[in-house]
Amino acid sequence: MVRAAAELIRTKGVSGTGMREIVQVANAPRGSLQSYFPGGKDQLVSEALRWMGGVAAHRVLRVAAHIDPRTPGALFAGTVDLWRQEFLTSGFGGGCPLVGAAADVASTSESLRTVISDGFDGWQRPLEEVLQSMRVPKQRSATLAMVMLSALEGAIVLSRVRRSVEPLDAVAQELAPFLDAAIPKGTQH
Amino acid sequence: MVRAAAELIRTKGVSGTGMREIVQVANAPRGSLQSYFPGGKDQLVSEALRWMGGVAAHRVLRVAAHIDPRTPGALFAGTVDLWRQEFLTSGFGGGCPLVGAAADVASTSESLRTVISDGFDGWQRPLEEVLQSMRVPKQRSATLAMVMLSALEGAIVLSRVRRSVEPLDAVAQELAPFLDAAIPKGTQH
Repeated sequence: MVRAAAELIRTKGVSGTGMREIVQVANAPRGSLQSYFPGGKDQLVSEALRWMGGVAAHRVLRVAAHIDPRTPGALFAGTVDLWRQEFLTSGFGGGCPLVGAAADVASTSESLRTVISDGFDGWQRPLEEVLQSMRVPKQRSATLAMVMLSALEGAIVLSRVRRSVEPLDAVAQELAPFLDAAIPKGTQH
Repeated sequence: MVRAAAELIRTKGVSGTGMREIVQVANAPRGSLQSYFPGGKDQLVSEALRWMGGVAAHRVLRVAAHIDPRTPGALFAGTVDLWRQEFLTSGFGGGCPLVGAAADVASTSESLRTVISDGFDGWQRPLEEVLQSMRVPKQRSATLAMVMLSALEGAIVLSRVRRSVEPLDAVAQELAPFLDAAIPKGTQH
């Protein structure tokens, strides 16, 4: 049900997602919602967003483990490419659930806003750590991680709305060399 | 009513915005909705998004007319600064209505998706034109305009969710020098 909720949130936002629909998509028995999520929709949405935040954080480490060369630009391009593949194979139906939720509940539910904010923090942290392991200076790793998250999230929205991966391609192509230049000279491999 | 709708969409998305609430916020007489917007909610939402797309496009030209030096980095930093000021003076309640709408109706209403996409196109075009007037090569002006839009939109979402302008500051600070470097050497003033 958590997975079904995440899938619906990234397609239609939180307000557009009905509890009945989640149960239906999850193919769960009626009434199971009440017993698993006594806190109702807010609890289920929170768990879905926490789960998706964890997936995003895990993806950073997976991309970092597989890129060659191991540079900030390759890390960003590899992360962008996961979304590119997702759109090209599954269509442009769903965006990022954190953005989907931010759009409609960031101002109406303080508890959900905190969950979304924690989700972004938990995604930014491994990005920073991987950047530092690539010899990006610590302070700069924070601002660059925010640039990476911002550009990726914005490009996901643009690509989704345009039904074209062009915006994702544009940020990967333009920002990869810029990010690589953040490794102080003389320490690059 | 168009303005009230835009304000509500950028706060709560399309699904979270009720027609009655729009009429209430606009302080309009009951029943006026039906006569001005016979197409119902979709028509009103479309008009609100078109209006906001026009505002965004107009802002690009206004920023371009006032920056000194007239460089791509100053254009971007000036645009980011409008959002920075908005958050600092009016709070973090509302984001970009195009993103707010994209999150919940991009996959459920093809006509609204087209309106949102047109909104982004109408914002990207003046960005490209201003970049070209700054001697950024034509082809690159398109990819850089997408980078600017993506980074700005993503940073708006992050700033709003974190109730902090730090992400906006990060993209302005990091990307301004990168954007300035897009002017071919020897043609800079």
